[in-house]
Amino acid sequence: MKLFLLASLAFLASSSPIPSGGPQSLYSCTVKTQEQADALLHFDVFNHRFGPNAVVDVRTRSATEAAKLKSLLSCTLKNADIYKVPEDLGDANAIQRAAAVDPFFSDYQRYSTIISKLVSWNATYSNVLTYVPSIAVSHQGRNVPAIIITDKSVPSSAKKTIWWNGMMHAREWISPATVMWIANNLLTGSSSDATIASWLKQFQFVITPMNNPDGYEYTFTTDRMWRKNLRDNGDGTLGVDLNRNWDDGHWGQYGTTTTTSDETYCGPSPFSEPETIGTANFISTFPNLYSGIDFHSYSELVLRSWGWTNNDSPNEAILKQLGDGIVSAIYGVHQEQYTSEKAAALYLASGVSDDWMSTKLGMAGFTIELRDTGNYGFQLPNSFIAPVGEEIWGGIKFYIDFLVKNPNIPPQYPTTKKTTTTTVKAATSTTAAVKTTTVATTCAHSKCVSGVALRSSCDACVGKIIAQDSYCGSTSWDSVCVGEVKSICGITC
Amino acid sequence: MKLFLLASLAFLASSSPIPSGGPQSLYSCTVKTQEQADALLHFDVFNHRFGPNAVVDVRTRSATEAAKLKSLLSCTLKNADIYKVPEDLGDANAIQRAAAVDPFFSDYQRYSTIISKLVSWNATYSNVLTYVPSIAVSHQGRNVPAIIITDKSVPSSAKKTIWWNGMMHAREWISPATVMWIANNLLTGSSSDATIASWLKQFQFVITPMNNPDGYEYTFTTDRMWRKNLRDNGDGTLGVDLNRNWDDGHWGQYGTTTTTSDETYCGPSPFSEPETIGTANFISTFPNLYSGIDFHSYSELVLRSWGWTNNDSPNEAILKQLGDGIVSAIYGVHQEQYTSEKAAALYLASGVSDDWMSTKLGMAGFTIELRDTGNYGFQLPNSFIAPVGEEIWGGIKFYIDFLVKNPNIPPQYPTTKKTTTTTVKAATSTTAAVKTTTVATTCAHSKCVSGVALRSSCDACVGKIIAQDSYCGSTSWDSVCVGEVKSICGITC
Repeated sequence: MKLFLLASLAFLASSSPIPSGGPQSLYSCTVKTQEQADALLHFDVFNHRFGPNAVVDVRTRSATEAAKLKSLLSCTLKNADIYKVPEDLGDANAIQRAAAVDPFFSDYQRYSTIISKLVSWNATYSNVLTYVPSIAVSHQGRNVPAIIITDKSVPSSAKKTIWWNGMMHAREWISPATVMWIANNLLTGSSSDATIASWLKQFQFVITPMNNPDGYEYTFTTDRMWRKNLRDNGDGTLGVDLNRNWDDGHWGQYGTTTTTSDETYCGPSPFSEPETIGTANFISTFPNLYSGIDFHSYSELVLRSWGWTNNDSPNEAILKQLGDGIVSAIYGVHQEQYTSEKAAALYLASGVSDDWMSTKLGMAGFTIELRDTGNYGFQLPNSFIAPVGEEIWGGIKFYIDFLVKNPNIPPQYPTTKKTTTTTVKAATSTTAAVKTTTVATTCAHSKCVSGVALRSSCDACVGKIIAQDSYCGSTSWDSVCVGEVKSICGITC
Repeated sequence: MKLFLLASLAFLASSSPIPSGGPQSLYSCTVKTQEQADALLHFDVFNHRFGPNAVVDVRTRSATEAAKLKSLLSCTLKNADIYKVPEDLGDANAIQRAAAVDPFFSDYQRYSTIISKLVSWNATYSNVLTYVPSIAVSHQGRNVPAIIITDKSVPSSAKKTIWWNGMMHAREWISPATVMWIANNLLTGSSSDATIASWLKQFQFVITPMNNPDGYEYTFTTDRMWRKNLRDNGDGTLGVDLNRNWDDGHWGQYGTTTTTSDETYCGPSPFSEPETIGTANFISTFPNLYSGIDFHSYSELVLRSWGWTNNDSPNEAILKQLGDGIVSAIYGVHQEQYTSEKAAALYLASGVSDDWMSTKLGMAGFTIELRDTGNYGFQLPNSFIAPVGEEIWGGIKFYIDFLVKNPNIPPQYPTTKKTTTTTVKAATSTTAAVKTTTVATTCAHSKCVSGVALRSSCDACVGKIIAQDSYCGSTSWDSVCVGEVKSICGITC
């Protein structure tokens, strides 16, 4: 009996919470064309932000889905069981190092433990911390909390607001751990570190470490690979991709779908989700909104707005300087090489938080994709909490210092009028390997999703469809037009 | 059986929730001297803010307490059973009028119904409303909610902040009803009334209608006359007077006691209570804090800061003009005569919210004591919800318009440096009937409570005590000095 129990425990320890069905696989695929990028829309791509010729990790839930994937892209099997917990080959001392900071950081913590830590901080650091227990209530009734760290003796009108957000995508456990790590550094340094004390006089740090509490808990109880929130879509599917639900002026247009079962389902309407609208409203009440970072994983990227267009933002030069500097500072800690780039690449995405804060609030918006680059992926062992926290704190110190030294970055509003019918230039290839059909075309959105009418010049297939069905080019690219991608062009979306 | 049930219901309807023990009485007492005012500190005075020669309503819980009261002041019995629900002789049409606005206003609502209304508003008025489900968690685990009403297209930095607070004292049911009423008027007018739309571009209205949810619920379930929150004081008593717990720089000094069973118990330390510190921290994050009103009952008063000293605040002239105007505007609606005055009178009070917002945030701080003047008292029938809402909305319209037209009221900070040892002039009598011993004395606090050392010039008794126990005049007025009020002066505190 004892032996049986031990064997069971060993088995349990080897697999994360897994939904019903057989093992699921991860494929490593090379994306060469816009069409291939579009085709990936209905797959679960683990590292979403990618550029031309990128190698991406794509999940398949069945042999059928794997076969379909391999018919579209060049893919090799990377992991035959994505729920199997990988062996931790990280720094053996790092867990002790994290525990020395606070036992809280020795492992990924459940939602209730994170809330308890915020409550505990509220008591310990009452001189610099404001705890707001709930800025939104999730579909399942959990509170989305916020903390504000600042020198309370300085009126808020005299300070700029910096916003850090964590845990929008459920499986990205390193996100809230890292946001809590840097919050902890601000708090512990508030009374002992003159530089931090000076920052707290100049900024209100508004920190929302747990944007998707339902999804986060679901990854502990039911499905370690869950990404979305837990809206009941009413059709047997669950969840909206919170980071496609922000009302950035381009909601539903790029890198997102209206298929409820998809991992990038944008929701029924912009800001339909309590987690996004509650957070957005709360952030909007603050004065002098200056910059924000939304923390995700994985890919090791420091991404600056915009994500919905390859066009440069009006502050491209200074934001590039800032992003590059963050990457250098991160590298300086553990010599881990992150990449600094514009959020938009081959893969455009709209309805994301960093574009919302840029286009609607004028903030310098960033997304940081934390470790790793796909070795452990979302199942990054807890021995990485300290290394990631340490290197991101290095990046954050550069970031804040840069904002102090550059107090007049202009508001990051779009250069064009806000409109949902703006036609933008699609990705311009930068390598010869990319098919010429993707170069210098004008596609307002993927032909595989509904949206505004497309132009014939978008691509050959779109041109063929519009030639036969002018409605798609004059009025709206509706579901009939999407269906014609298959029936007229023979392309599977 | 049916008859029995009906009889039971009739009985239930005639009495509010009542704690164990016999009936409790209300006495109408005339306060002529500072000593009498001090002696009232350990009684439950229903209308707390009073001036010289005031007639106040004082509760007695037993014949012994009644005898003690009558030995100290001239009192007449006003109500032999304060828990008996008075017959509603108000406007018979007013309940229908309230229901026509929203059925919510046809009666006093429980905590959960108020929360549901905020949630419902959040869905209906999402264009102008931000709902923050919890800015603090009470001792019993209830959320203290907030809403912000503003034109979201205007950055918060470009708007002034106005704060309205309700339900700090549990039995004052008309307070949250009125705060919700005026919030409802802002919301319904936001799209149809050009003046309101203009206000929403200039101000963020931060509204906290339910500061003491535990106490409020307790008045429905256990004790209709409960005032405090529900902290377990650890000595068999419950509750801190939240409106003596604010860290206004004079906490614990005036109109408050350190006796846990008292109705004005100031708590173990400034901002010891989650309801006050959570609200204070939250309000402090807003920019351009300009003015606030804390809604209480009863007495029909529009009180301007300060309450801890009779000294004029630096903005006395303009705040008097504003307070007087509010009173006129209220009168214009239903010809109900409120009184505009400085919060401090014969009865000083410290640790109150309006002084906190004045002294710590520089806001123009007001307290409005709603209807009535003691006829129904706290058991104001629901037929008064509409009349009070209507007349206060009249006052609020004047108030906001005044703030629009007077955009440069200077910050309302104290003229003296913040210190807990400031010695201030006590009440100066304005009528010949007040004993000369209360005129132009210098008492830092009542001799019946512990605090900083008192001066011999405070009053004759204090002088006698210091003559025999110099510690009380040089170091600290500790519990020994308080005891000497009885043993040396023969005065019962």
